[in-house]
Amino acid sequence: MRSILVLGAGRSAAALIQYLVEHAPDQNWKVTVADRSVAHVPAMLPGGTDGMELLVLDAGVTEARQREIARHDLVISMLPASMHLDVVKDCLRDRKPVITPSYVTDELWSLDRELKEAGVLVLSELGLDPGIDHMSAMRLIDAIRSEGGEIEVFESYTGGLIAPESDTNPWGYKFTWNPRNVVLAGQGSAARFIRDGQYRYIPYHRLFTRVVRVEVQEYGAFDGYANRDSLKYRELYELQGVSTLIRGTLRREGFCAAWNTFVQLGCTDDSYTMHVPKDMTWAQYFGAFLPPLGGKDLRDALIAYLQLDGQDAILAKLDWLGIFEDRSTGLDRGTPAQYLQHLLEEKWGLAPKDRDMIVMQHLVGYRSDHGVGRTSSSLVVEGSDPVNTAMARTVGLPMAIAAKLVLNGSLTHTGVRLPLFKEIYDPVLNELAELGISFTERQISS
Amino acid sequence: MRSILVLGAGRSAAALIQYLVEHAPDQNWKVTVADRSVAHVPAMLPGGTDGMELLVLDAGVTEARQREIARHDLVISMLPASMHLDVVKDCLRDRKPVITPSYVTDELWSLDRELKEAGVLVLSELGLDPGIDHMSAMRLIDAIRSEGGEIEVFESYTGGLIAPESDTNPWGYKFTWNPRNVVLAGQGSAARFIRDGQYRYIPYHRLFTRVVRVEVQEYGAFDGYANRDSLKYRELYELQGVSTLIRGTLRREGFCAAWNTFVQLGCTDDSYTMHVPKDMTWAQYFGAFLPPLGGKDLRDALIAYLQLDGQDAILAKLDWLGIFEDRSTGLDRGTPAQYLQHLLEEKWGLAPKDRDMIVMQHLVGYRSDHGVGRTSSSLVVEGSDPVNTAMARTVGLPMAIAAKLVLNGSLTHTGVRLPLFKEIYDPVLNELAELGISFTERQISS
Repeated sequence: MRSILVLGAGRSAAALIQYLVEHAPDQNWKVTVADRSVAHVPAMLPGGTDGMELLVLDAGVTEARQREIARHDLVISMLPASMHLDVVKDCLRDRKPVITPSYVTDELWSLDRELKEAGVLVLSELGLDPGIDHMSAMRLIDAIRSEGGEIEVFESYTGGLIAPESDTNPWGYKFTWNPRNVVLAGQGSAARFIRDGQYRYIPYHRLFTRVVRVEVQEYGAFDGYANRDSLKYRELYELQGVSTLIRGTLRREGFCAAWNTFVQLGCTDDSYTMHVPKDMTWAQYFGAFLPPLGGKDLRDALIAYLQLDGQDAILAKLDWLGIFEDRSTGLDRGTPAQYLQHLLEEKWGLAPKDRDMIVMQHLVGYRSDHGVGRTSSSLVVEGSDPVNTAMARTVGLPMAIAAKLVLNGSLTHTGVRLPLFKEIYDPVLNELAELGISFTERQISS
Repeated sequence: MRSILVLGAGRSAAALIQYLVEHAPDQNWKVTVADRSVAHVPAMLPGGTDGMELLVLDAGVTEARQREIARHDLVISMLPASMHLDVVKDCLRDRKPVITPSYVTDELWSLDRELKEAGVLVLSELGLDPGIDHMSAMRLIDAIRSEGGEIEVFESYTGGLIAPESDTNPWGYKFTWNPRNVVLAGQGSAARFIRDGQYRYIPYHRLFTRVVRVEVQEYGAFDGYANRDSLKYRELYELQGVSTLIRGTLRREGFCAAWNTFVQLGCTDDSYTMHVPKDMTWAQYFGAFLPPLGGKDLRDALIAYLQLDGQDAILAKLDWLGIFEDRSTGLDRGTPAQYLQHLLEEKWGLAPKDRDMIVMQHLVGYRSDHGVGRTSSSLVVEGSDPVNTAMARTVGLPMAIAAKLVLNGSLTHTGVRLPLFKEIYDPVLNELAELGISFTERQISS
């Protein structure tokens, strides 16, 4: 019997834990789920908790964490990204393989050699994005290359969105994952990519004005805005020769132009705390980001300041949020980002039956003996209910399947590895397809 | 005989060291100037180096630093701000007073109690800005209050600029101090202040579009843009009741509108490194921050992108810098801020006879039994030559005068102190006036 330790049992771990527990009998697994609080976990498992041990554990406590790691064969860390390094160090000491959904940090890379020497595998970036994006991109790229094609264009967009039936507001958006990350999206550094052989650099405050239209079959049009650093994927995917390389994020069409209002005002800033009276209204609050109103009301002043004259679709979204209303904010301190999140959580919260939706689409252009070709590969996953969300399934199932591969001995790799190689992406993507998570490829006439 | 240790002998220490050495005979001082490199110091002292000891010292080496501090009566730290804390800790141990021109950090504040208990004075923020700004503002505020006036408005602007006779380019600007700080000015957090009873928050990317016109008698019009956090001066100057409180930076009129071009493009960003071909031209380089040019040349594309049609004053400044030229950048890597600094250092460098200029102006509005009043207080200091700059004199002389006060026993304060109190600002400002650094006050009819 092999044992698996899952560290962290937040909402995004539901599908992972379900899969592990369901397959415990046939895979001869013993599954331990450890978190600081575990009372909510049984409700994630409609099929029962047989074969699972629940453990109250603060993974920040070194001794307790090390004790649990020592007595398991494989560790899956769903902890906050900053805690992975400690887990990996423990696993290095005890020679246990680790799987995480998070981006590899420089600190983690620096352990690569030691991990290799110890024969320990750390599979990282194995969720949705990063994760399924890597695997599906590499399968597509490798297939084109195996036919003699040379990649010239790689574009990839992903969005965590709301399913069409639950899309009931003018933004086409609700909070289906961490609201704070949504408010801060795109901050920290400029977007950088290559298009048509030209380097492009877009600062945060221009990001939501430089949007491309992304069409997804059966689902219509989306806004795509560029992620921070697309250039690093040249090395990762071995795309050094491409003339276009861009990765981005999807929102429903029209979202970005309206979101840009908040960016322009400085309302997504998280770098300083405001101390303002608790009875300040939202209209007064937003007015503080504008020049003196000069007798205009806030709406007219905003139209003048940001040149929104005639931009009815933007104004309708702002009206719907109530930013012009004489209603108290209810907060007496917070960063601008926290104020905005507070307002948006009231408006963009999920109703009990709302379902989320994941959309991912790659576009690959290539040249071969037969001329040039373009292929798109699209994934749309809709959630079933608030527990079985598309996000939890697409983040958790790749790790669950990879756990099976590791424990069954199919993966003999060591060191820090991303799921960029055939021995992992083929079995994971194939089993995901059986579970209903499958890409649709289309040849596009150019 | 009393002994003074000056740690750090960069360009901005010239006037400080001159004063200390000149007054060594009459004040019975022994002056030690310590830096990692001291060969340039004698040239700062046209009157000779009698009474001064020059010492090669790396202040980062604890033992050497502590040995020197132990054998002096007063320490003036002109080291980089990050090194002050170690100096203060040594001075706390040996009970030596310290003077620095830098902002007080939270770490330094946390030593306040220990310093008070040990009877040690740390005089901080005693240069120009911070420094002369504090002293002149508090003298003005205290004078109005002593007449029964209540402060309603406080505005204060300072600029490190080029003297009119040396102002030979369309920007009205040259690098008279740290070029890197000029390129990064305003970044890091939003500007926040109160005007007419309203809180105002301006994000960095809007800062140079929300400029006020500041008139300085005999010197004409300047652009004033808001500094990051004016609100903290409410506590510092005890201005809790004011309806307008703003501190800002001065540039020559028209500078900010043109500088905004670089901000809008993202060319002042220091958060990521670009790797671009060394033979890339400036036109190609700046083109990377724009959307695809679509057949337009860069100049026309920029006019379209940033709506500069008819903005001839802005375009003349950009033309003069050569941003549209097919001339190689000469760099193959750097942050956008480093690229811009590289270009600007070519263009904004000082000629041998160029002189700098400091401009500071406060505007105070108040209410008293006689009605409302407004007073402006202005300081303009022009440099004499590249060594005797206005910047070095206004930064260094307040500390030199304060050193005299401390060693003569006129200041009995302990702990971390800013020059906000009469016992320091009166003698320092009075002696500065004798040295030709004096404010001109005017009553403004309202």
